[in-house]
Amino acid sequence: MQEQRNLTMLTDLYELTMIYGYFKHDMQSKEVVFDLFFRKSAGKSIYAVVAGLEQVIDYIENLHFSDEDIAYLRSLNLFDEEFFKFLQRLKFTGELYAMKEGEIAFAGEPLIRVKAPIIEAQLLETALLNIINHQTLIATKASRVVYAAQGDGILEFGLRRAQGPDAGIYGARAAVIGGCVGTSNVLTGQMFDVPIKGTHAHSWVMAFPSELDAFRAYANVFPDSCLLLVDTYDTLRSGVPNAITIFKELREKGHKPVGIRLDSGDLAYLSKEARNMLDAAGFEEAKIFASNDLDEYIIWDLKAQGAKIDVWGVGTALITSKGSPALGGVYKLVSEYDNEGNELPKIKKSDNPEKITTPGYKKVYRFYEKETGKAIADYIALDGETINESEPITIFDPNAVWKQMTLTNFHAKELLCPVFIDGECVYKKPSLKEIAKYTADGIDSLWDEFKRLTNPQIYKVDLSQKLYDTKQRLLNEIQEDSK
Amino acid sequence: MQEQRNLTMLTDLYELTMIYGYFKHDMQSKEVVFDLFFRKSAGKSIYAVVAGLEQVIDYIENLHFSDEDIAYLRSLNLFDEEFFKFLQRLKFTGELYAMKEGEIAFAGEPLIRVKAPIIEAQLLETALLNIINHQTLIATKASRVVYAAQGDGILEFGLRRAQGPDAGIYGARAAVIGGCVGTSNVLTGQMFDVPIKGTHAHSWVMAFPSELDAFRAYANVFPDSCLLLVDTYDTLRSGVPNAITIFKELREKGHKPVGIRLDSGDLAYLSKEARNMLDAAGFEEAKIFASNDLDEYIIWDLKAQGAKIDVWGVGTALITSKGSPALGGVYKLVSEYDNEGNELPKIKKSDNPEKITTPGYKKVYRFYEKETGKAIADYIALDGETINESEPITIFDPNAVWKQMTLTNFHAKELLCPVFIDGECVYKKPSLKEIAKYTADGIDSLWDEFKRLTNPQIYKVDLSQKLYDTKQRLLNEIQEDSK
Repeated sequence: MQEQRNLTMLTDLYELTMIYGYFKHDMQSKEVVFDLFFRKSAGKSIYAVVAGLEQVIDYIENLHFSDEDIAYLRSLNLFDEEFFKFLQRLKFTGELYAMKEGEIAFAGEPLIRVKAPIIEAQLLETALLNIINHQTLIATKASRVVYAAQGDGILEFGLRRAQGPDAGIYGARAAVIGGCVGTSNVLTGQMFDVPIKGTHAHSWVMAFPSELDAFRAYANVFPDSCLLLVDTYDTLRSGVPNAITIFKELREKGHKPVGIRLDSGDLAYLSKEARNMLDAAGFEEAKIFASNDLDEYIIWDLKAQGAKIDVWGVGTALITSKGSPALGGVYKLVSEYDNEGNELPKIKKSDNPEKITTPGYKKVYRFYEKETGKAIADYIALDGETINESEPITIFDPNAVWKQMTLTNFHAKELLCPVFIDGECVYKKPSLKEIAKYTADGIDSLWDEFKRLTNPQIYKVDLSQKLYDTKQRLLNEIQEDSK
Repeated sequence: MQEQRNLTMLTDLYELTMIYGYFKHDMQSKEVVFDLFFRKSAGKSIYAVVAGLEQVIDYIENLHFSDEDIAYLRSLNLFDEEFFKFLQRLKFTGELYAMKEGEIAFAGEPLIRVKAPIIEAQLLETALLNIINHQTLIATKASRVVYAAQGDGILEFGLRRAQGPDAGIYGARAAVIGGCVGTSNVLTGQMFDVPIKGTHAHSWVMAFPSELDAFRAYANVFPDSCLLLVDTYDTLRSGVPNAITIFKELREKGHKPVGIRLDSGDLAYLSKEARNMLDAAGFEEAKIFASNDLDEYIIWDLKAQGAKIDVWGVGTALITSKGSPALGGVYKLVSEYDNEGNELPKIKKSDNPEKITTPGYKKVYRFYEKETGKAIADYIALDGETINESEPITIFDPNAVWKQMTLTNFHAKELLCPVFIDGECVYKKPSLKEIAKYTADGIDSLWDEFKRLTNPQIYKVDLSQKLYDTKQRLLNEIQEDSK
């Protein structure tokens, strides 16, 4: 099992130069609010499956500068001794709200909202982004692959192509959150109680005088979990016939073979042929596993072509989110408080309009149709606002305010949950199995139109009138200032 | 500083089921050879910059199954107690040769060659691939970004978008190997003695009543390393003029400002305008830093358009190798030894012809032109073969044997170096600075044609006649067998 790691130094240098600046200007106790959100989900998805909160909690609870860390920072000749004394005492004392792991999130919504003294809030930025961006990316990709497989099992097989050990470990964790039924990664299995799967590689077959010898040797050791890789030499001419020979031997001894794995060639053609050969030999229950650079699009196409594959092993494309290997989550200052505790919402303009932030200490609601249980729209509101489910509510598109919609007979769920209050963790971490169930329910609550692999329908994320007005007012003020 | 981690369980389950199978069949002492190689470099590159060997060495030296690991494996109900006793004693006793970190490698060449009892050699597979695939991927990407910048400095800024903590930590290490002059990542700086860089974010500007106040506050704290981010509100109308105001204040106090950073908008236009404004105010030496979703192609284009940028901060695209987020390195059995110690080369055929392996215990030579010092071709030979530099050598393309070339006046370098002999590490780890220098020399030894960002020329990797004949013989034998 892995030790708890101290990731306090896992940060960009500018977080430290900034907190030094706040420290030197006696701004330590200034309270601020930061939102962690993404402007666009990864790749062609319009939603994201939130993941990584458990590691964020571990990081915050373990946050401290060790003597060795201080010695290193001293060697940079950027900071003074008074600051090091301050750092050695530093811990998180603030408030943190977050969407649950497995929650479905959309662009512009705070996944995490931090309210804390500015130095503490700023210090968290890089590590929170690193953890949430990564795991949310992979959980989202996994949910798409699972969607493409239309009920077949997906196994995560990507450790060897993952971007380092953590990408393998936490990527496999996120893949299970996104809906994978297991992983090949033994360490992830050990750390998170996840089902692990695997049989043998080509090297096993090559280490014996013949393929048949190799298959027989494997069946001897694993008579009740015998899954044979059939493409080392020639799938249909040697692999499948040899597997059937061994399966017959197992059957005679009262064992039931698991099946075969295809790892190269045309998987539609080979799986149909292999299925026929297995069925003809009376192994209708033997499963066909397939791997080889699969992704959601290839699985979708192979299924459309009638491939006879029962379980899909997905490696590189899943563990790296190939095609879109980063979620662009950001962490932005959205409010501060004056000495009397009054909130002053803040906005960031930009030469890129899509980089404009939404100000204020906010909450996020999801509206569901009562009859179907399906999600209708999300709604971001300011702190003091409440939703009364018994009254109709009219919402509008903040980018096209004439697009309005009035909801009746709806249920509203608040998506941000308390995680830290006054620096204490108040969140009960669910098991990975519970998180995966929560994801599955969330995915179920979305109409298929939002889950389409290409060109999905855009989901509504609207602002309350009050929040919209606040944003417009701040934008106008900046515009006036820079004239 | 991070503790040494035990990554023994960072493996695919099938490595364990296979070694259990070898154990149960009394094949523990069977000696085999595995090659780690890639069939195609990542993205549009035809070369790769090897990285990760130091972490491979750490992994192997630290390899052991702890009591907790054994307890977990026992819970799987796949293995027996005799095997656990064996695992608890297991350590690496074999031989490992590898290309140095920073070496330039091409498709089909062994980056690592392991000769060991089959159980030990097999056990290493997943972790070696994970580490080498990741770091080699990022070092290669970095070398392309550095090439595009034509002498400007590249800073690695991607930690927040990296695929988990290790991807940030070791990705930044690899980026420095590939030629980056520094990173924002404090932990990488601490662990590997790498220059770290950073100033402030938009949130700093927003935390003060005005941009000018924020800039002045920053300059007060860092008068001699003052680099100001100018795009929080409006780059040319407020950011740059405010920066110049502060720079003048610094100049009056005898300090020299570092410069400004652009993070949004059109970087070609904004940098030229900002350069003019800085120069007009007498700050010709103030540098312009730029960031915002840069990659090698955008940098190349911006430079072609005359952008006045001195230092480039590259984040997401570099740390994830966007566009090609995995190197497809594989680890294949290429030889085994019989009881008398005779080598029996092995081959893997496949329904995908490009997956056919090159058999045997091999070494790799690089031929250089004596006059220019430039690399001409690589040459893979069998163990017993030697190169005599004083005699001409004729090499040929193994995929088109009529393509021949005779070399005279060449220098030959052997690329695989001893790392472990009889399980003992015999390799002196160079510093990261030394590795980066080795990369730079290797990149220099390549003609520009091989470094072109798109459609680079293919580099020759030829097989010796003896190796070619061995491969053809084994292919023919398999073909006969499966008839």
